Amino acid sequence: MSTTPEATKTSPTKTSPTKTRRGYSLNKDDYRARLRRIEGQVRGLQRMIDADEYCIDVLTQIAAVSKALQNVGLGLLDEHLRHCVLEAAQSSRAEGDAKVHEAVQAVDRLLRV
Amino acid sequence: MSTTPEATKTSPTKTSPTKTRRGYSLNKDDYRARLRRIEGQVRGLQRMIDADEYCIDVLTQIAAVSKALQNVGLGLLDEHLRHCVLEAAQSSRAEGDAKVHEAVQAVDRLLRV
Amino acid sequence: MSTTPEATKTSPTKTSPTKTRRGYSLNKDDYRARLRRIEGQVRGLQRMIDADEYCIDVLTQIAAVSKALQNVGLGLLDEHLRHCVLEAAQSSRAEGDAKVHEAVQAVDRLLRV
Amino acid sequence: MSTTPEATKTSPTKTSPTKTRRGYSLNKDDYRARLRRIEGQVRGLQRMIDADEYCIDVLTQIAAVSKALQNVGLGLLDEHLRHCVLEAAQSSRAEGDAKVHEAVQAVDRLLRV
Repeated sequence: MSTTPEATKTSPTKTSPTKTRRGYSLNKDDYRARLRRIEGQVRGLQRMIDADEYCIDVLTQIAAVSKALQNVGLGLLDEHLRHCVLEAAQSSRAEGDAKVHEAVQAVDRLLRV
Repeated sequence: MSTTPEATKTSPTKTSPTKTRRGYSLNKDDYRARLRRIEGQVRGLQRMIDADEYCIDVLTQIAAVSKALQNVGLGLLDEHLRHCVLEAAQSSRAEGDAKVHEAVQAVDRLLRV
Repeated sequence: MSTTPEATKTSPTKTSPTKTRRGYSLNKDDYRARLRRIEGQVRGLQRMIDADEYCIDVLTQIAAVSKALQNVGLGLLDEHLRHCVLEAAQSSRAEGDAKVHEAVQAVDRLLRV
Repeated sequence: MSTTPEATKTSPTKTSPTKTRRGYSLNKDDYRARLRRIEGQVRGLQRMIDADEYCIDVLTQIAAVSKALQNVGLGLLDEHLRHCVLEAAQSSRAEGDAKVHEAVQAVDRLLRV
């Protein structure tokens, strides 16, 4: 759906600068904006340390930044399943299974943080 | 121990710019450096999105950044318990209990991310 | 694939005792065995409390039981995606999308524990 | 406070059946009751599998059981910090630091689940 035939022939982990489209391609601006906001929050954490803010307040803010990061991850997972995995499944059962396995391993890594 | 008498009289969540010392005060440079590295990793995530990198690779990197953030949180928790909580306990049982309760709530927020 | 036409007409959250098959149906014995083992671990935790075992040892065991539970959850997620979600996607894009959304929300609940 | 002198002489990870008291000793009945309830929830999960309940409903219940387990862990951590760690800190700075380090490692294991 969002992957060109060219892209599916290249390794899925390599980027082909002009053609590759990913599950999140239609929402790149949204993801960029959210990550820029998270980058700003991490700079805010540095300022909290500089200003000797109370440890517990820094921890609360760390939890907030982690949650924002996880939400970006969940959004990417949603789009990945919706696009890449469902499309792989349309080409063959084996490809669908491989993509599902890969996605569940990614969830496992997020859970283990 | 690391808190001046002045600081303990002010609200623990307010910073008194010149005097307050926190559990992490002796390691501020280390925390700053780790947070700057995390900031760089978040910029790296934006570049991955720009370059249409594979969703699963972005998720793996998100898990790595989250883990780095959690490790900063665990370090701060360690120093907070070691300094602020143990010192509060030295002034009174009630203060120690209140600080423990507050720290466990912070852990709860980290767990719920 | 593993769902009979009758089952898909009933609400997915209701069980139709004789016919419904789920993503995990082929591995029910495995899941039952794992959950029985987890039940035994929870009884073990009660014995640790009875025997006044060291708090940290109880916490370590709680982490082990939680990990075992999460692994059951990841296994069920894998089979759910592989069977229910990919099949839903075969009937229609909208059904596939709805199933993906539902699965990602389930992951979100697991992450927020 | 809740540890007898005899107990502190033995290894903290060994149980001395008659004398040892732990941070949670005053609330043993509460912890036993909560763990029995969690044991019942794990049996409930087995019944859900037996009855072929919908994968997502099983996952939701797994998240609920995990959360109940984590809450037991947070309660034990609270009492451990309040009793064992604060008392250790009263005997010496080094003992307090060692206990804090041990407790933070336990939190780390809970976070990594």
